[in-house]
Amino acid sequence: MTATPIYLDYNGTTPVDPAVLEAMLPFLREHYGNASSATPLGRVARSAIEAARAEVAALIGARPGEIVFTGGGTEASNHAIRGFAAIAPAARRRIVTTTVEHPATEMPCRRLEREGFAVARIGVDGDGRLDLAAALAAIGEATALVTVIHAQNEIGTLQPVAELAAATRAAGAPIHVDASQSLGKVPVDVSAWGIDALTIAGHKLYAPKGIGALYLREGLSVPSVIDGAGQEGGRRPGTENVPFIVGLGRACRIATERLAQDARRLETLRERLWQGLSAAVPGLRRLGGAQTLPNTLNVLFPDAVGNDLLAATPAIAASTGSACHAGDSKPSAIVLALGIPAQEALGAVRLTLGRATTEAEIDAAVAALATAHRAGGRA
Amino acid sequence: MTATPIYLDYNGTTPVDPAVLEAMLPFLREHYGNASSATPLGRVARSAIEAARAEVAALIGARPGEIVFTGGGTEASNHAIRGFAAIAPAARRRIVTTTVEHPATEMPCRRLEREGFAVARIGVDGDGRLDLAAALAAIGEATALVTVIHAQNEIGTLQPVAELAAATRAAGAPIHVDASQSLGKVPVDVSAWGIDALTIAGHKLYAPKGIGALYLREGLSVPSVIDGAGQEGGRRPGTENVPFIVGLGRACRIATERLAQDARRLETLRERLWQGLSAAVPGLRRLGGAQTLPNTLNVLFPDAVGNDLLAATPAIAASTGSACHAGDSKPSAIVLALGIPAQEALGAVRLTLGRATTEAEIDAAVAALATAHRAGGRA
Repeated sequence: MTATPIYLDYNGTTPVDPAVLEAMLPFLREHYGNASSATPLGRVARSAIEAARAEVAALIGARPGEIVFTGGGTEASNHAIRGFAAIAPAARRRIVTTTVEHPATEMPCRRLEREGFAVARIGVDGDGRLDLAAALAAIGEATALVTVIHAQNEIGTLQPVAELAAATRAAGAPIHVDASQSLGKVPVDVSAWGIDALTIAGHKLYAPKGIGALYLREGLSVPSVIDGAGQEGGRRPGTENVPFIVGLGRACRIATERLAQDARRLETLRERLWQGLSAAVPGLRRLGGAQTLPNTLNVLFPDAVGNDLLAATPAIAASTGSACHAGDSKPSAIVLALGIPAQEALGAVRLTLGRATTEAEIDAAVAALATAHRAGGRA
Repeated sequence: MTATPIYLDYNGTTPVDPAVLEAMLPFLREHYGNASSATPLGRVARSAIEAARAEVAALIGARPGEIVFTGGGTEASNHAIRGFAAIAPAARRRIVTTTVEHPATEMPCRRLEREGFAVARIGVDGDGRLDLAAALAAIGEATALVTVIHAQNEIGTLQPVAELAAATRAAGAPIHVDASQSLGKVPVDVSAWGIDALTIAGHKLYAPKGIGALYLREGLSVPSVIDGAGQEGGRRPGTENVPFIVGLGRACRIATERLAQDARRLETLRERLWQGLSAAVPGLRRLGGAQTLPNTLNVLFPDAVGNDLLAATPAIAASTGSACHAGDSKPSAIVLALGIPAQEALGAVRLTLGRATTEAEIDAAVAALATAHRAGGRA
């Protein structure tokens, strides 16, 4: 029998918090009403959805009415990006984004390029931090929208969202921020930042996969990417996923309570991981610089292929980049965007920590990775 | 303390079958891997998704590779209708549908009208059955696609899908069928019908809300309504909702096993309901004719307003039409489409039965509705 691997892929997905599952279960059992129905069961569902909406709003400094539930982060980003493009004045046909976005942002941008928009993709430095001067220079009266990832999902780098928001606002355009990866790990405050839309993904936040939310600033109205009935105040059709909405609400409430202490604990563990690995693996290089998510460590193993190294280290479960690209033996496009040469980029391994991670796991992971690397990193 | 109302709103939504929840729970607990990840947890998720895909396919006579999981029935219908429109040759700019579609079909059709398509909405007779001759006359070489609801969700009327499919095929166009309401209640066979796409909604089928699937015939490729990463073989992006996909698979397996016996039992109960009500309420009128879903009874109470009557009958939970229109005091647009005068249409009440419905519930519902109607039907 094989022991359960040490899970170091929390940026890929999180387990559902047991308290989140507990909150959801009544809505998978007795409270099965359709929230759009006037029956007593329907009213129970409706009021649970509204309570969850308030919990999501509280985590990000929004008002409950500014939260629209979606089928996940990808849908939320599509909703914001394509929605803002749809309402942009004819003179605004330029989208400003970065070279290190998630496909949920990059692919809608490509669709809009095919539809006649120009997309300016601002580059990043060796730490993955965007060239702010270049971004500010690109934002102007032709800007239809700005869309930027708050924390890069592979590297963990945090982008200067507030500065971008100020410039975008001054240019009279809306700004969308993808907080799928950062929410619950670092503070997110849509009001302090002054942004117009924010993507929330449940499964990075100890809620289930298949639920997300979009913050859309009060007064803004954009078309949904899906057409249908009048749910979510006409903003997003489809019978509401009541249990998962309740779960996302509970996960946000827990994140609100735990954020500061979780961040401190994870950063300490993450530094222990880096200290251990860098001592054991000469030439190990760390990506991401100072301003990263507290739980994320992306390292380049010298003279190694990250996929092979992980295959040779069954004691841990991690990834070489975004889970969406698993099975791909090319170097991560994100690591390449940092200016890392392709050969070196192949050695990237993303180790991401979470609530259940322990010191003992970190020490065991260091030992396992170091041993596999010394053995040549082949499975 | 109030007793739990008798639930007669199964067409609005079903409870989750306990066996479905049982199948899902491991994927809300220990099997939390991202199905796109190469880790052992990821492989467990991936293989559960593929098993569910086969179970869904088996219920509708499809191959597993023809099933794409979505966030619900509304998304699936959008995917098919807007997808077929996107790939239609320039000479085909006409959509053929009916006057009794769900908003998940009607609203994408309206979007396509704004984009330059013509939409022919074929009318229905007093039973809700479409005018087949008119439909066949409308389908031709200018047809981009045909989209039709299999079982009308408020009335239960079944449409002649196979005949429409043959004509559509002969005209060289694709046909999409919305089986959200019929699947699990009557046989659905995409191969026997010869159709190109089918909408499946989990929450009408004892699976949860927030999961659906699209059958898309092998060899067909249409753009997704959402852009992102490469999940579902590039056909639908977003991290897979593994627990709900597993639940939908189990629900389809149960439906495959129980369909014939459930249909017989529900039809017997439904006729008992009709016999009881029509004996107790002089002038009661039944909608839908002979070819309806076995669980659905839509009746017009004379000199009554359905919403008021239901409000005066707290012993039962039912609706006056689609749950999506709750709170609306106008007569149902669907009932009006059957040619019922507005005043009479206001008396419509939809009573829909399901697996947990008992004879005793039917008899109690008859008594409660008859009493409320005699009392004037006011709350």
